[in-house]
Amino acid sequence: MSYDLSLDEVRQARQRIAPYVRHTPLLPLPALRDDLPAQLRLKLENLQVTGSFKARGVFNNLLQLSPAQRERGVITASGGNHGAALAYGAWRLGLPATIYLPEAASADRVARIAAWGAQVIKHGSVWDDAHQRAVAHAAETGQVYIHPFDAARTVAGQGTLGLELLDDLPGLDCVLIAIGGGGLIAGMAAAIKQTRPHVRIVGVEPTGAASMRYAVERGHVAPLPEVRTIADTLAPRAVSDRTLDLTQRYVDEIVTVGDVQMIGAMRWLWAECNQLVEPAGAAVIAALQAGGLDISRHAQPVALICGGNAAIEGVFSSYASR
Amino acid sequence: MSYDLSLDEVRQARQRIAPYVRHTPLLPLPALRDDLPAQLRLKLENLQVTGSFKARGVFNNLLQLSPAQRERGVITASGGNHGAALAYGAWRLGLPATIYLPEAASADRVARIAAWGAQVIKHGSVWDDAHQRAVAHAAETGQVYIHPFDAARTVAGQGTLGLELLDDLPGLDCVLIAIGGGGLIAGMAAAIKQTRPHVRIVGVEPTGAASMRYAVERGHVAPLPEVRTIADTLAPRAVSDRTLDLTQRYVDEIVTVGDVQMIGAMRWLWAECNQLVEPAGAAVIAALQAGGLDISRHAQPVALICGGNAAIEGVFSSYASR
Repeated sequence: MSYDLSLDEVRQARQRIAPYVRHTPLLPLPALRDDLPAQLRLKLENLQVTGSFKARGVFNNLLQLSPAQRERGVITASGGNHGAALAYGAWRLGLPATIYLPEAASADRVARIAAWGAQVIKHGSVWDDAHQRAVAHAAETGQVYIHPFDAARTVAGQGTLGLELLDDLPGLDCVLIAIGGGGLIAGMAAAIKQTRPHVRIVGVEPTGAASMRYAVERGHVAPLPEVRTIADTLAPRAVSDRTLDLTQRYVDEIVTVGDVQMIGAMRWLWAECNQLVEPAGAAVIAALQAGGLDISRHAQPVALICGGNAAIEGVFSSYASR
Repeated sequence: MSYDLSLDEVRQARQRIAPYVRHTPLLPLPALRDDLPAQLRLKLENLQVTGSFKARGVFNNLLQLSPAQRERGVITASGGNHGAALAYGAWRLGLPATIYLPEAASADRVARIAAWGAQVIKHGSVWDDAHQRAVAHAAETGQVYIHPFDAARTVAGQGTLGLELLDDLPGLDCVLIAIGGGGLIAGMAAAIKQTRPHVRIVGVEPTGAASMRYAVERGHVAPLPEVRTIADTLAPRAVSDRTLDLTQRYVDEIVTVGDVQMIGAMRWLWAECNQLVEPAGAAVIAALQAGGLDISRHAQPVALICGGNAAIEGVFSSYASR
């Protein structure tokens, strides 16, 4: 089966979600540091509502539910960011939500989701376990399962970020995008390539959770034998047929980065522009710093900072004890 | 003696510093939370180069030095942000810099300044002690002392933020600005009130370092008997004749906020828009949350997030140990 995502779908999604999401800023130049190309711009999607791009796909789903579906409510399984976005979206639109998280989810993350009134249930050691249980739960209750990446409406919602970026920077010629389940890069790449086919699109995955590269190399989706990365929001065991198909068609290359490189990139983002982000949000910077990726020929390259939900409770408590 | 700051001075400063500083974003709406007025916008000056508005005043000074002055170099005393901005500006323009910090300055702050090649000297328990020693040092060596707030060029540089904000939001009708030595509010208020006299300008000081209110109440500058606040970048013992004069003329009111309120506001900024800022940067939000300040009648109010250099080394080390 072949999947597609038309520009019209993305344009309609953009119009649909506009009142509910933020048009996030490009970090204004000048760059402070000179260790990366001076023309590099950062798209600060960590400033999106609930701190990541996930709100885009969520609202594109929720706003298309029927009245009966709204009444039954929604359910999902999430590494964290999609769950927070869904909890917020459901609160905003006044419908019930249930969020499955892996057992290892931090108290901070649980609290953040529960604060929007969602029911939180922990299950399993990785996202895939939580996902299976949540799908079964949805079948029992009639709640609508909102998939974090393998759904046409989710991918169309994330694709709005591609159109927004082209509006921000009409001369865009290269963009770096992190890959988890692949919904973000699938949507963005489809939107950008169908508008401007010559923009180079580079995917970035954690070395310890390179599920898209694994699928691309095999030509089909397959679960990784092991997932091991600090970038827990980029860590499903497998991508999906849909995101693989769109990636094969629209993404030029995939590079991988290690945990130590992502932590170094987190420090760089803090030093460069006082943005504290989660490891996934810094992965694109890590890819540039690792040295294997040359973007010097591009006049208007962009690194997409996809999410900012770092674990920082200790910062506030350290101030409180002063 | 009466001080003035003309719009022309601020306009010239803006043109002068433009290649070296960032036009910082207003946080795009919608607001996520509903506990503050939904029309409130945040001007994210924590995204400025070196993480605070200080770069504006610094570059307006440095770019007006003579060749001989550039060769001798510059010196200052700083609670941290002005020192970081001066160290960066001097590195950027290729001139030597010496930065005095109070003894209590963190290793992190010292390292950040030293990384730009500046000489760092610790002296005294508060900024005022470091300032006196730095002024004496400047007299001996012939280096130019760049005052963090009591200098016409510094105040004109900070004033550029007022003109920028009016460009961002022509309907601006109220702005909240934190006060340390008063250079920021003096410059911004002068620039804004001389352009649009009806914009309401509210200053915000820490309860434990309310040096401007102390001076306004007495009608003259006087040192506080004690300074005690976690907002160490808002904590000089006294403002200056210049900043007091401009504040008396152009600022409508001053409110104060406690440490606990500032920490609460730091959490709010993180939850609302994933911006981790220092206590000083959150003071304006604390002023709104404390309840004594009503901005509900304003259609386009702005809270200026003046700086973001929070102490967060622990965040990176906690990721590194996972």
